[in-house]
Amino acid sequence: MTQQVKILAFDVFGTVVDWHGSVSREIDAMNLGIDGDTFALAWREGYRPAMQRVMSGETGWTLIDDLHRMILDGLLERFGVRHLSEADKCHLNRVWHRLDPWPDSVHGLARLKSRFMVCSLSNGNIGLLADMAKHAGLPWDCILSAEIFRAYKPDPATYQGVARIFDVRPEQVMMVAAHQDDLAAARAAGLRTAYIERPYEFGRSRPKDVSPDPANLLHATNIGHLADLLDC
Amino acid sequence: MTQQVKILAFDVFGTVVDWHGSVSREIDAMNLGIDGDTFALAWREGYRPAMQRVMSGETGWTLIDDLHRMILDGLLERFGVRHLSEADKCHLNRVWHRLDPWPDSVHGLARLKSRFMVCSLSNGNIGLLADMAKHAGLPWDCILSAEIFRAYKPDPATYQGVARIFDVRPEQVMMVAAHQDDLAAARAAGLRTAYIERPYEFGRSRPKDVSPDPANLLHATNIGHLADLLDC
Repeated sequence: MTQQVKILAFDVFGTVVDWHGSVSREIDAMNLGIDGDTFALAWREGYRPAMQRVMSGETGWTLIDDLHRMILDGLLERFGVRHLSEADKCHLNRVWHRLDPWPDSVHGLARLKSRFMVCSLSNGNIGLLADMAKHAGLPWDCILSAEIFRAYKPDPATYQGVARIFDVRPEQVMMVAAHQDDLAAARAAGLRTAYIERPYEFGRSRPKDVSPDPANLLHATNIGHLADLLDC
Repeated sequence: MTQQVKILAFDVFGTVVDWHGSVSREIDAMNLGIDGDTFALAWREGYRPAMQRVMSGETGWTLIDDLHRMILDGLLERFGVRHLSEADKCHLNRVWHRLDPWPDSVHGLARLKSRFMVCSLSNGNIGLLADMAKHAGLPWDCILSAEIFRAYKPDPATYQGVARIFDVRPEQVMMVAAHQDDLAAARAAGLRTAYIERPYEFGRSRPKDVSPDPANLLHATNIGHLADLLDC
């Protein structure tokens, strides 16, 4: 079943990079008098409803950088942070371009590249993903983003778009993610799926359920383990 | 003038890879009884009018892979090659995914990455450019293609699209190409430009004019020389 797979398409936030740790560390280092852990979770929580407003047509096509900024402005107000300059807010908003990888990500992706076309498939915009790859040393063969398809995951146009770009059948693409809902939508679009355990995606104090779903073709503890399973 | 440049956007066919040498070598090795040099030139000659038919609206949006195939089918007929199977023709059409780099390209791009975001800006489709990067070892930070903008160079939407993707001003992007017309269109769209000499783009027996145009900010003999000029 894995022999015919040619393309590995990776979810990025949470699967390849540690958004919670990176954002909360940066917030804490700014000494704003707010708790980095709480702020990071609140910022991320605003992300899915914001994308849904785009996909429902309530707002026009909007990049994640701009959605992040709208959510940030609301949160700074709510947390009572009123002294940041426009330049400070722009810089803080780009923390999502500076996320650190999980310890196994860079080497794991490099191993997988020996046998597969390894690309991102993220709702992050292209500029964000390219900055992040440079910051974190992520060795993508190709950066694919919702921005290319003008649709956010879990819209089937994103998953099927990967197959179309590489001129392969959907079952020749394997979606890799730490989120079962992303993988379920990929399967519904005809892709193979692999789950990656990231128990501390929401922080050490909030371990998440990483139990296997038999609907996935593969289940790996991390990206290095995925490379083992795929003989890379 | 170069200090504010953050993004280097490279033309690919002819600038980074040697399409003429790669295609003609592969045609010659197939022993079809046709001359590789002549065939490669004829194939490439069909490329610009095909793109113009797309951009004029005469045909709908069509990827380069499909334009290459239409041109190939006509050429095989014209050169009297009638025994190739569909699989052979598909494979041959993908020679454009297997182009070899000029000797200075891989190391030159790697040097430039130390100071700049280094991306492609090619009329080639994303899958073609990703396969080529893997084949040739081109270390792009990001693959940008006409496919993303649904417009072919020299349409200004392509050049300005690079600035938009990275959220910078047009003058913070430098277009790098071995073709003065590509660079002139980039300047008209507000970009900085650098010319790369590729005297043998059309083969050793057909050296092309590589004399400097003072309208370009930089003029380099190859990509390594461009890295020298940019202190990388």
